Amino acid sequence: MQSVIHVNLPQNSYEIAIASGSLDKLGAWMSGEESKPLNLGKKVLVVSNPAIFKRYGERAIGSLTAAGFEVASCILPAGEQYKTLTSLQKIYNLALENRLERSSTMVALGGGVIGDMTGFAAASWLRGINFVQVPTSLLAMVDAAIGGKTGVNHPKGKNLIGAFHQPRLVLIDPDVLKTLPPREFRAGIAEVIKYGVIWDADLFAKLEQSSRLDQLRYLDEEILQIILKHSCQAKAIVVGKDEKESGLRALLNYGHTIGHAVESLTGYKSVNHGEAVAIGMVAAGQIAVDIRSWNKAAAERQNELIKKAGLPTKLPTGLDVEEIINSLQTDKKVESGKVRFVLPTQIGAATVTDRVPPDVLRQVLWQMQ
Amino acid sequence: MQSVIHVNLPQNSYEIAIASGSLDKLGAWMSGEESKPLNLGKKVLVVSNPAIFKRYGERAIGSLTAAGFEVASCILPAGEQYKTLTSLQKIYNLALENRLERSSTMVALGGGVIGDMTGFAAASWLRGINFVQVPTSLLAMVDAAIGGKTGVNHPKGKNLIGAFHQPRLVLIDPDVLKTLPPREFRAGIAEVIKYGVIWDADLFAKLEQSSRLDQLRYLDEEILQIILKHSCQAKAIVVGKDEKESGLRALLNYGHTIGHAVESLTGYKSVNHGEAVAIGMVAAGQIAVDIRSWNKAAAERQNELIKKAGLPTKLPTGLDVEEIINSLQTDKKVESGKVRFVLPTQIGAATVTDRVPPDVLRQVLWQMQ
Ligand SMILES: NC(=O)c1ccc[n+]([C@@H]2O[C@H](COP(=O)([O-])OP(=O)(O)OC[C@H]3O[C@@H](n4cnc5c(N)ncnc54)[C@H](O)[C@@H]3O)[C@@H](O)[C@H]2O)c1
Ligand SMILES: NC(=O)c1ccc[n+]([C@@H]2O[C@H](COP(=O)([O-])OP(=O)(O)OC[C@H]3O[C@@H](n4cnc5c(N)ncnc54)[C@H](O)[C@@H]3O)[C@@H](O)[C@H]2O)c1
Ligand SMILES: [Zn+2]
Ligand SMILES: [Zn+2]
Repeated sequence: MQSVIHVNLPQNSYEIAIASGSLDKLGAWMSGEESKPLNLGKKVLVVSNPAIFKRYGERAIGSLTAAGFEVASCILPAGEQYKTLTSLQKIYNLALENRLERSSTMVALGGGVIGDMTGFAAASWLRGINFVQVPTSLLAMVDAAIGGKTGVNHPKGKNLIGAFHQPRLVLIDPDVLKTLPPREFRAGIAEVIKYGVIWDADLFAKLEQSSRLDQLRYLDEEILQIILKHSCQAKAIVVGKDEKESGLRALLNYGHTIGHAVESLTGYKSVNHGEAVAIGMVAAGQIAVDIRSWNKAAAERQNELIKKAGLPTKLPTGLDVEEIINSLQTDKKVESGKVRFVLPTQIGAATVTDRVPPDVLRQVLWQMQ
Repeated sequence: MQSVIHVNLPQNSYEIAIASGSLDKLGAWMSGEESKPLNLGKKVLVVSNPAIFKRYGERAIGSLTAAGFEVASCILPAGEQYKTLTSLQKIYNLALENRLERSSTMVALGGGVIGDMTGFAAASWLRGINFVQVPTSLLAMVDAAIGGKTGVNHPKGKNLIGAFHQPRLVLIDPDVLKTLPPREFRAGIAEVIKYGVIWDADLFAKLEQSSRLDQLRYLDEEILQIILKHSCQAKAIVVGKDEKESGLRALLNYGHTIGHAVESLTGYKSVNHGEAVAIGMVAAGQIAVDIRSWNKAAAERQNELIKKAGLPTKLPTGLDVEEIINSLQTDKKVESGKVRFVLPTQIGAATVTDRVPPDVLRQVLWQMQ
C-alpha cells in the first residue's frame, strides 16, 4: 500500500510518500524514477546517528548509489543534547570535504533530532541546498519531517536557532518503526491524537476503534497506514495554508504550551516530548471545558485515547504547579507576556486564545497533580 | 540631500535611504516617523565592532532610545577572521539575555563583516526576526548591505554558511565615511567601478569626470551622492530581478572570479577585497577584449578609472599564474568544474560565460604579472 500526500506551497511544494519497503527505493525516489524529477544533483550527504545508521544506513546508501548518486555520510551522536551548533559544524565539515554544491542534497535519515539539524545545515550551507527527509521515528514521520521548520538548540532554550527550509521530498517507510523503542512510539502517538482532536474527527474515531495504541506490534497494518496518512495530511494542509506560522499553524501547538513547561522543568529527561504533550492536552482540554469552549464528554474521550496509548494524564510527581505557571510566563517565545493556549472547540476543531483566566489554569493544574 | 531607493521584491520589499546626518535619525526611520511604519517591535539589539561603536554607537543608540526602543548592544571583535560561528553565538547569547522576540529587530552598525553576521543571526534567531542595515563602510553601503545575502565563514572557505534574509531598511549616512581608512574607501570604489562597467554607463561617465577617486576628501559632495545613489540603485534593480541569484545577479560577480582566487591565495591579507576585484576586473576586461566581446578602448577606460582610484591593475608580485588557474578550478562554489566569468560587452552591460578558452585566461594572467 502506498500513499502520496502533496504539500502545496506557493514556491516549494513537495510530496510525502508513505510506502512499506520504500527505504530500498530512496535512490529511485530521489532520481525521479518513482515520481517526477527533482533535480537533486549528483552529490548526497546522508546524515544519521550511530544506532539508526547501523540498522538502515547500508540500505539507504545502497539504493542511492544504485541510482547513480555519489554518497557520503555524516554520523552524529544520538540525542537531543547533541542538537547543537557543534553538531552542525560537523555536517558543514563533511559538506566541505565532499564538495557539496548548490545543486547537491542532504538526506536526514533519523528521528526529529537528525531531521531538524540536517534541515538547518541544508538551509544554511551555501545559503540553501536541497534536502530530503527520511524520518525513522513515528514523531518525525507525522510531525517533525513535514513543514520545513529546522534548527538546533541554544544551551538555554530549545529550537531557538534555525530556519524555515522545506524538504524536497519526505519518504516514509513504516517498516522501520519495528525497531523503534515503544516509548518513542508512544511519543509519536501523542502527536497523532493531537491531530485527531484539533483537526481530524475521522482520525479520532479510527483511534477510538483500535483496541490498543501503546505499542506498534498490537496495531494492525491498516490502522498504522491510516495514522500515518491522516496525520501527514493534517500537517500538510495546515502547513500549506500557513507556511511561516503566522496564524493557523499555531493550532499545532495544542498540548504544547503546558507540555513545553513540563518538559523543560523536568530537564527533558524523565518526561519525554510526547508524554509532556499528552499531559498538556489533558490540561488544555480541561481548561477548554472549564471555560465552556468544549464539552466534558469530548474531553473524556480524548483522555481515554491518551490512556490507551500508555501516555500520562497527570503531572509528574514532585512538579510544582506554581513553577509551571511561572515557566509559562517566562517562556522565551512568549510575546509581550501573554500565554497562548490552543483549545478544542469540538473533536476535530480548535482555536487559539491568550485569555485563559489565571485561576482556571491554576485549578486545572492542581487537579492534575 | 536625501535619496530613497526602493528594493522591489515579491515579498520583502524595503527602502534604502541615503541622507547626511541620518544616523541621528535611525530611531525615527525605524519607528516610521521618517517613512512608512515598519513594525519593528520594541526591542533592538545593535551589533557593531569596538572601533565603530566607539565612534557612532552612542548616536545610534541615543536616537533609538529617543524613539522609544529598548536597546541592547553586542560588540564583536573587528575583522574578517571573526566572521565565524563563534561570533554568531555571542549574538545569540545577547538575543537570549535580552529576550528578543519574533517581532524584535537586530541592527547592524558597521561594515560588511558586521552586516553579514548580524543578518545571518537575524535570519536564524527564532527562525527569522527583523533586521536593519546601517552600513558604515563604502563597500557595505554600495554592496554588502543590500540584497539579503548574509552569512559567516567556514574555517576553510568564505561565506559558506548563511541565508538569504532581506533587511527591513538600509540607512546610509555618508558622513560616517569621513572616518573610514582610505584603503577601505578604495575597496568600496572598486565595486562602484564594477557597477559602472556592467550596468550603468552614466555612473561610469561621472566617475571619469571626477578628478580623483582615491580618497574621500578629494571628492566633491555631488559625486559622492551620485556614487552612492547609482550604485545602490544598480544593486537594488539586479537584486529585485533575481533575489536568490539564479541568473542576472551573477553579473555582480564581475571581477570576482579571479578576484576571489587572488584574495584567497594571498591569505586575505596583503590584498584586500576591493584590490582583488580591481585586479579581477582588469583580467576579465582583457579576456573580454581577447575573445572579442569588448573593445580595447573601453577596457582601457576601465583600467584608467581603476588607476585613478589608486587600485592595482597587476597581479601581486610572487603570485604564480598556474596557482591562480588551479585555484579557479577548485573553487568551492564552482559547479561541475566549469569556471564562470562575467565579461563586459560594452560600458554598462555584461554577460556571463563558462567558455573562456584556457590559453586566453593563461595569457591574460601572464601579461598581468
Ligand atoms: N521540525 C519540526 O516541525 C518538529 C516537530 C516536532 C518535533 N521536532 C523535534 O524533533 C525532535 C524529537 O524527534 P524524535 O522524537 O524523533 O527524537 P529523536 O530524533 O531523538 O529519536 C528518538 C530516539 O529514537 C531513535 N530512533 C529513531 N528511529 C528509530 C528506528 N527506526 N529504530 C530504532 N531507533 C530509532 C533515535 O536514535 C533516538 O534515540 C526534537 O528535537 C523536536 O524539537 C521538530
Ligand atoms: N552580503 C553581501 O552581499 C556582501 C557583498 C560584498 C561583501 N560582503 C562581505 O563584506 C565584508 C567586507 O566588508 P567591508 O569591506 O565593509 O569590511 P569590514 O566590515 O571589515 O570593514 C572594513 C574596516 O573598516 C572599518 N570601518 C567600517 N566603517 C568605518 C567607519 N565609518 N569609520 C572607521 N572605520 C570603519 C571596520 O571596522 C573594518 O576594520 C566581507 O566579509 C564580504 O564577504 C558581503
Ligand atoms: Zn510536538
Ligand atoms: Zn565584492
